[in-house]
Amino acid sequence: MTTSLSIPSNITAPTRFLHVANETYAYRRFGGGGTHPLVFLQHFTGTLDNWDPAVTDTLASGREVILFDNVGIGRSTGKVPNTVQGMAAHALAFVDALGLTQVHLFGFSLGGMVAQEIALEQPSLVRKMLLVGTAPEGGEDIMRIDSPELKNIFDSNLPGLQRLLKLFFAPSASSRAAGEAFIARLAQRSQDREPVSGPEIAKAQIAAFRAWEAFTGERFAKLRKISQPCLVVNGVFDIMIPIRNSYLLSEHLPNAVLLTYPDSGHGSLFQFHESFTRQAATFLASDSPFAPYIEEKGARKRPKSSANRSNG
Amino acid sequence: MTTSLSIPSNITAPTRFLHVANETYAYRRFGGGGTHPLVFLQHFTGTLDNWDPAVTDTLASGREVILFDNVGIGRSTGKVPNTVQGMAAHALAFVDALGLTQVHLFGFSLGGMVAQEIALEQPSLVRKMLLVGTAPEGGEDIMRIDSPELKNIFDSNLPGLQRLLKLFFAPSASSRAAGEAFIARLAQRSQDREPVSGPEIAKAQIAAFRAWEAFTGERFAKLRKISQPCLVVNGVFDIMIPIRNSYLLSEHLPNAVLLTYPDSGHGSLFQFHESFTRQAATFLASDSPFAPYIEEKGARKRPKSSANRSNG
Repeated sequence: MTTSLSIPSNITAPTRFLHVANETYAYRRFGGGGTHPLVFLQHFTGTLDNWDPAVTDTLASGREVILFDNVGIGRSTGKVPNTVQGMAAHALAFVDALGLTQVHLFGFSLGGMVAQEIALEQPSLVRKMLLVGTAPEGGEDIMRIDSPELKNIFDSNLPGLQRLLKLFFAPSASSRAAGEAFIARLAQRSQDREPVSGPEIAKAQIAAFRAWEAFTGERFAKLRKISQPCLVVNGVFDIMIPIRNSYLLSEHLPNAVLLTYPDSGHGSLFQFHESFTRQAATFLASDSPFAPYIEEKGARKRPKSSANRSNG
Repeated sequence: MTTSLSIPSNITAPTRFLHVANETYAYRRFGGGGTHPLVFLQHFTGTLDNWDPAVTDTLASGREVILFDNVGIGRSTGKVPNTVQGMAAHALAFVDALGLTQVHLFGFSLGGMVAQEIALEQPSLVRKMLLVGTAPEGGEDIMRIDSPELKNIFDSNLPGLQRLLKLFFAPSASSRAAGEAFIARLAQRSQDREPVSGPEIAKAQIAAFRAWEAFTGERFAKLRKISQPCLVVNGVFDIMIPIRNSYLLSEHLPNAVLLTYPDSGHGSLFQFHESFTRQAATFLASDSPFAPYIEEKGARKRPKSSANRSNG
C-alpha cells in the first residue's frame, strides 16, 4: 500500500480502489521523494480527472501525491454528505486506511474546507496545508449559485468544460487562453476516467457550502487552533469563492502566508501553474517555510498562541 | 558612476553624494550582478540607516542596490515636499543623474507611493517594483497618527528605536523578538550615519499621506496604467498602513502578485527577511515572475489591458 507507481502523471496513473468499512474510495497515487505524501482534496463536483496534470505531475516530482474521490464522487461508493464535517470524516477514514500517520493536505475550494476540518479533527495527522480558492467556516458569499453572475453560467447550455472555463477563469483574453490550455490538459487523460458528477452531488455539496457559511460562537475562532503552516492562494477575480475569504483565512490563521494572482479567478493555480507549483514545492520542502519562523520538530503540538514561534 | 563598491553591506557602505540642479542627494550604492539596479525608496521619516542589512545585503548579492535619501532627508539638502508627486520628481532627478535608464524599484511604505508615481510619470524607467507596506492613491486609513493606537505610541516617551519596534511589529512575543533583532541589525552601522528626521520632516510627509488618500476621477484607475510586474507585500497586522491597502493594490494593479505574512505588521519584510528576500530575488531575477505570463521584451510599452499577456 505504500509503493509508488512508476508513471508519475495524472494522465496515466491508474485509478485504485480502497475498501474501508462500508465504502470503496477511488484514488490515484504516484510520484515520490520527500517525506510526507500530499493528499489532494477536490473542488465542487470535481473528480480525480479534474486535477490538472501541470499541477499534480510537477508536485509529484518531489513527493508522493494522492488524489482522492471522496464518498459518493466518481467511482467512490456511498452518498455525498451535506456537511464539510461529513466529508472530512471520510477523508480521515481513507487516509488512516492507507496507514499514513502524517501528510500534507492540498485542499482546493470545497477541498480546502475539508482540509481545515481535518486539521481541527486530527491535528497530528496534518503537517502543512495548501488552501487554494477556499474559505473559512463563517466565510462570505461562498458559491452563491443564485447570484446573477453564477446563475448565468449555470443556466447556460454550455458544455461542462466550457462552463468550467467561465467559472474558473477571468474574462480577459489572457485568462481565457490559460483556461483553454487547462481544459486541453484535463482532456489528455483518455482512459480509466471517472464518471462526471450529477445534480444530486451538486445539491449535497451546495448544502455543505451553506452550512459552512454559518458559525457558532466567535467568528473564525477555530482558525486560531490550526497551527500548521498554511499557504493560502487564490486569484483576485474569483466569482465562486471571493478573494476576501482568502484574506479572512490569512488574517485569522496564525501561521499562514497568502499568495494572490492577478488577472485570474478560482483557477489561478492552473493559470499560473509554474509559479504556483514552485511556490507550493518550496513551501512543502522547507523546514521553515516562512523563515525566520522555527517550527517545532517531531510531534505536532498545537501552540496556544503564536508566541511559541521563535525568531532566528 | 556605474562602479560597485567592494563591500556589499549597508553596515559599511560609505554614503555618497550626488549634486543635481540645486540639491545634493545622499545615497549608498553597493552589490552587483544581475541586469538592473534596485533603487530603494524609504518609509516615513526613515533614512539610509533605516534599511535593514538583512534585506539590503541579501538582495545586493544578486544585483546592485542603491539606497536613496530623498530631498530634505538625512544629509540630502532641500525641503521635504508635502506631496508624493514632489518626492517622485526628486527621485527621478536623482536616478536620471546617475545615468540609469531602467531600474527596479523597491518602495516601502511612503516609498511605495513614490514608486507608483515614478512608474506613472516615467514608465520606461521602471522594470519591476516591490511595493511593501504601502497603499494606492485613494487608499484607506494611511498613517492616521491621531488614531488611538498610533497616538499612544507617538505620544509615548519611548526612545526612537523602541517606538519603531511598536510601530513596525505585532504585539506577539515572536514578532517583538523579530523586532528586537531588527533594531540590533540597524545598530550595526556605527559610523557615517545619517541625522535622524525631526518633526518638520514628519509634518511634511504626513501632509503627503493625507493628499495621497484623496483622488479625483475613478478610484484606482491610475493603477491600471502600471503594467510592470509588481510584488505587493505586507504583514496582516499593519497598524500604520492597514493590509487592505495591499489588497486594493493587488486587485487593481493588472500585473501584481500579493504576498502577506502572518503574526507581523508594517515591518513584515524585516521579520521574515529570509522568506522576503528569497521571494524578492526570485521575482526580480525571473523573466516571467508569474509564469505563464510571457512579458514583452525590450521596450516597456504600456498595454491597454491585460490581454497582451500570453499564456505559455
